[in-house]
Amino acid sequence: MKIEGFEVNPQLDLVLDRTVDVPVELVWKAWTEVEHLVKWFVPKPWSVAHCEVDLRPGGKFNTVMRSPEGQEFPGSGCYLEVLPNKRLVWTSALLPGFRPAPKAVNTHELLFTAVISLEAVSKGTRYTVIAIHPDPETCKAHSDMGFTDGWGTCLDQLVECIKNGEIA
Amino acid sequence: MKIEGFEVNPQLDLVLDRTVDVPVELVWKAWTEVEHLVKWFVPKPWSVAHCEVDLRPGGKFNTVMRSPEGQEFPGSGCYLEVLPNKRLVWTSALLPGFRPAPKAVNTHELLFTAVISLEAVSKGTRYTVIAIHPDPETCKAHSDMGFTDGWGTCLDQLVECIKNGEIA
Repeated sequence: MKIEGFEVNPQLDLVLDRTVDVPVELVWKAWTEVEHLVKWFVPKPWSVAHCEVDLRPGGKFNTVMRSPEGQEFPGSGCYLEVLPNKRLVWTSALLPGFRPAPKAVNTHELLFTAVISLEAVSKGTRYTVIAIHPDPETCKAHSDMGFTDGWGTCLDQLVECIKNGEIA
Repeated sequence: MKIEGFEVNPQLDLVLDRTVDVPVELVWKAWTEVEHLVKWFVPKPWSVAHCEVDLRPGGKFNTVMRSPEGQEFPGSGCYLEVLPNKRLVWTSALLPGFRPAPKAVNTHELLFTAVISLEAVSKGTRYTVIAIHPDPETCKAHSDMGFTDGWGTCLDQLVECIKNGEIA
């Protein structure tokens, strides 16, 4: 299966493919501006305690998720492709500046690359996420963590923020 | 120390910085076309048994080095930045398509990102390589393997190929 130029391997990759009735430009904005990311990026009642965005290949995409109990989970990422209103790619395999991530960092974190593809369609935006993993074990772990529900819930939150005018 | 927008950390990174008296366009060609890469990419009497180039971010950069005894060492890489005549970046931390490299692949291989920066100067080309590692141990291992001599010898071979007309 090929999505937006990416070969999807069902044993290694997870896909969320939905169409949402909001404009592609606002979905891009939601994904790329810190003030908006914090509103929807983690499923409530979890929250984003901190977020840093340096929107360029090699730039930083760091987030700190906070559990309802107040425990914090930092995630370090690096942007790989930044194609406005079209595609955003980042990976947890690299730190900012394209530095390979040391094994010790973010041991709670999954090793994966995220490809967010957007396409303007008559009903709004076709929104496709591909989560690309190094091996079947990591893919299964991500699936068991609830990839589809989790990313789906976040997308619902994103759409709601656009519809209620929080992201405009 | 900052080189071409990259923060160099002396504990994690290795640098080769030279000026060579050949044109920047031919150095770029030497680095990006398979028929030329095989002529200079490994220090003789080692050779390149096989090489694949898909010159775009996310594209494949695979090489198989062959020892004088005939042993082969495959290396899998992924291009990150392709800025003609200016900068080429690839990493062994990702497979083609930005897939995080599984730990089992290429165990002989070092985890690093290579940044090749080129600049046209009056004497020819300023040629800077930054090898970016995840931790001090990997950096030291690369240094002990002879990074400076090895990459320097390859650059000498590259320059020689341009001067004798093999790369034109």
